[in-house]
Amino acid sequence: MSNYPVWYEHIHTCKQTGARLGRVHTPHGTIDTPAFMPVGTQASVKGMSPDEVASMGAGIILSNTYHLWMRPGSELVAKAGGLHRFMNWKGSVLTDSGGFQVFSLARPKDIVEEGVHFRSHLDGSKHLLTPEKSIKIQNDLGADIIMAFDECCPYPSTHDYSARSLERTTRWLDRCIDSHKRPDDQALFGIIQGNMYGDLRAESTKQITSRELPGYAIGGLSVGEPANLMYEMLDVVTPLMPEDKPRYLMGVGTPDYLIEGSIRGIDMFDCVLPTRMGRHGTVLTSHGRKIIRDKQYAESFEPMDDNCDCYACKNFTSAYIRHLLKAREMFGQRLCTWHNIHFLLNLMEKVREAIAEDCLGDFRDSFYKEYYGNR
Amino acid sequence: MSNYPVWYEHIHTCKQTGARLGRVHTPHGTIDTPAFMPVGTQASVKGMSPDEVASMGAGIILSNTYHLWMRPGSELVAKAGGLHRFMNWKGSVLTDSGGFQVFSLARPKDIVEEGVHFRSHLDGSKHLLTPEKSIKIQNDLGADIIMAFDECCPYPSTHDYSARSLERTTRWLDRCIDSHKRPDDQALFGIIQGNMYGDLRAESTKQITSRELPGYAIGGLSVGEPANLMYEMLDVVTPLMPEDKPRYLMGVGTPDYLIEGSIRGIDMFDCVLPTRMGRHGTVLTSHGRKIIRDKQYAESFEPMDDNCDCYACKNFTSAYIRHLLKAREMFGQRLCTWHNIHFLLNLMEKVREAIAEDCLGDFRDSFYKEYYGNR
Repeated sequence: MSNYPVWYEHIHTCKQTGARLGRVHTPHGTIDTPAFMPVGTQASVKGMSPDEVASMGAGIILSNTYHLWMRPGSELVAKAGGLHRFMNWKGSVLTDSGGFQVFSLARPKDIVEEGVHFRSHLDGSKHLLTPEKSIKIQNDLGADIIMAFDECCPYPSTHDYSARSLERTTRWLDRCIDSHKRPDDQALFGIIQGNMYGDLRAESTKQITSRELPGYAIGGLSVGEPANLMYEMLDVVTPLMPEDKPRYLMGVGTPDYLIEGSIRGIDMFDCVLPTRMGRHGTVLTSHGRKIIRDKQYAESFEPMDDNCDCYACKNFTSAYIRHLLKAREMFGQRLCTWHNIHFLLNLMEKVREAIAEDCLGDFRDSFYKEYYGNR
Repeated sequence: MSNYPVWYEHIHTCKQTGARLGRVHTPHGTIDTPAFMPVGTQASVKGMSPDEVASMGAGIILSNTYHLWMRPGSELVAKAGGLHRFMNWKGSVLTDSGGFQVFSLARPKDIVEEGVHFRSHLDGSKHLLTPEKSIKIQNDLGADIIMAFDECCPYPSTHDYSARSLERTTRWLDRCIDSHKRPDDQALFGIIQGNMYGDLRAESTKQITSRELPGYAIGGLSVGEPANLMYEMLDVVTPLMPEDKPRYLMGVGTPDYLIEGSIRGIDMFDCVLPTRMGRHGTVLTSHGRKIIRDKQYAESFEPMDDNCDCYACKNFTSAYIRHLLKAREMFGQRLCTWHNIHFLLNLMEKVREAIAEDCLGDFRDSFYKEYYGNR
């Protein structure tokens, strides 16, 4: 069906919103899109077993190149037979480039044309990450989808810096393409940058999508800018993206961003939100966020979300889970994480149903009404 | 079958060793004995779901009165419908008296005839635990088996102190019996003390078992004494215990103690060993203990125990689990805990099979040979 190891099958476009219903095919299965990808930074979706993550309907997870490079090392993962076998995950995997992490560890002068100099967050040791090195590590890890090494410049950045940065991102993409050793079983996605400037986003989209690749991502959004500015950028970018390739909006995972992103034609999303919030005892529910650690749930012998049929909500009360969180029991973090991942996967399932029925706009309105209440 | 909510059914006595094969019947099911009880201190077997614990074959877990009293409070658990419902555990539960914990928080002068004065480990607040209070809390928690409030005197203690202490333990038992409000659905077990003195152990056994109770426990062992001294005490006590009641050896859970205890006629054991060791990255295997965190397992792409069919060993390598432990991923602790609990439950299953076949002595010898190797 395609020359690429990963390819997009379009099924339907929502008549009400233009959102895309489709499937992304990878060497490890098929993902219904729009899809949310849970994050397993260190080859584990924090607290969860791979079986639990799969049982909730996740077909793909994201793992982090920087973290696995630092520990246990990509050669070790390669020896184990690659990331899928190392962590015994039977679905698809996407690895990021490591760029996002090393930029946060580097000073401005450490970012040079060759790559980024930085110090490890584990032991302070000095390293250099380049496009070639990132691809080498990702070839070792063996994910189905690998990401180009790009520069995600901070928000806010000047127009001038953002323009130079997006040009470098394109040059780095070409180096990634040239050094990619497994194009037959790993799909390299390019990343569109351009900060919060519409003209630069358009230019980056033009440059990145001019390279024939199996998929394209939008990076550098959801980095602290107001929601409307992100939507404005998406409105510039997605109409310029090819329709026959998957579109991935990086680092996005709040319920509203998932819905608004889908409406703007995005197929894939990832975010640490459900796992990180879960570990800290906050859950996403149909009635909005709940801080289950709070005193108000001490004697709440009801599920965390009365509209949820996840393992946590079917089997345990808010009072019990609050007790576990207060007592620092791992199982409390597990249950909140479980619920949050289920919540977002379930939300995406409803989004896909709404697209199929041409009513994603109506779904958004009724979801927001319930989620935000009368605020 | 019995006037008690919990009763012992004897099936077979091992001709080679005298070990007892039986069943303990409780309001929440039947437990094949000799049995190991995993510990869920704060209403959670650390890291595990109740379903996982049950799936491994555990029919009964232990929970701690002191911890639940301090947090979330026994009234809250009672409001939730009792401990079983609070934590959604469908099997049997045993609660300790809280004595062991408060003795470790008290100074000698805080131990008086009325009870024990101590300060909470959470906030330093002052409390008094008495036999009546312990039973009240345990009545609130609603476990199938509840334990008498006893004095577990430290090892070593003088003969004189140990003698006075065991007399007090008997007086406290009578106060427990008098204040027990739910004898129809909660079985109160008395606890035999006497430190490491054979004559005192015999005297305590005589006193405690002279009270008509559904079961009896042996406390104050495995508190730092040499193994032989513990076996010596068991050899004094168990022949004096009634044959038609369950016998519980408290706080014991190393593989050798479980086997030797079974040989000496014990039916029930509990210990935090498998969960605590698992959290710290050490596992019990058929070839002895392994510290999976160690460098030597960095590239071990084999299961932690090649003779094990637990979830961790069937699905993950030592190298992966070591990576998770080094990276402080919860899932690594979960997998080691899972394996350890499975290991002890499986060991007890083999012990029961060996009793049925009159060859527990042979089993012990071959187990030790494999477990300890040539050391």
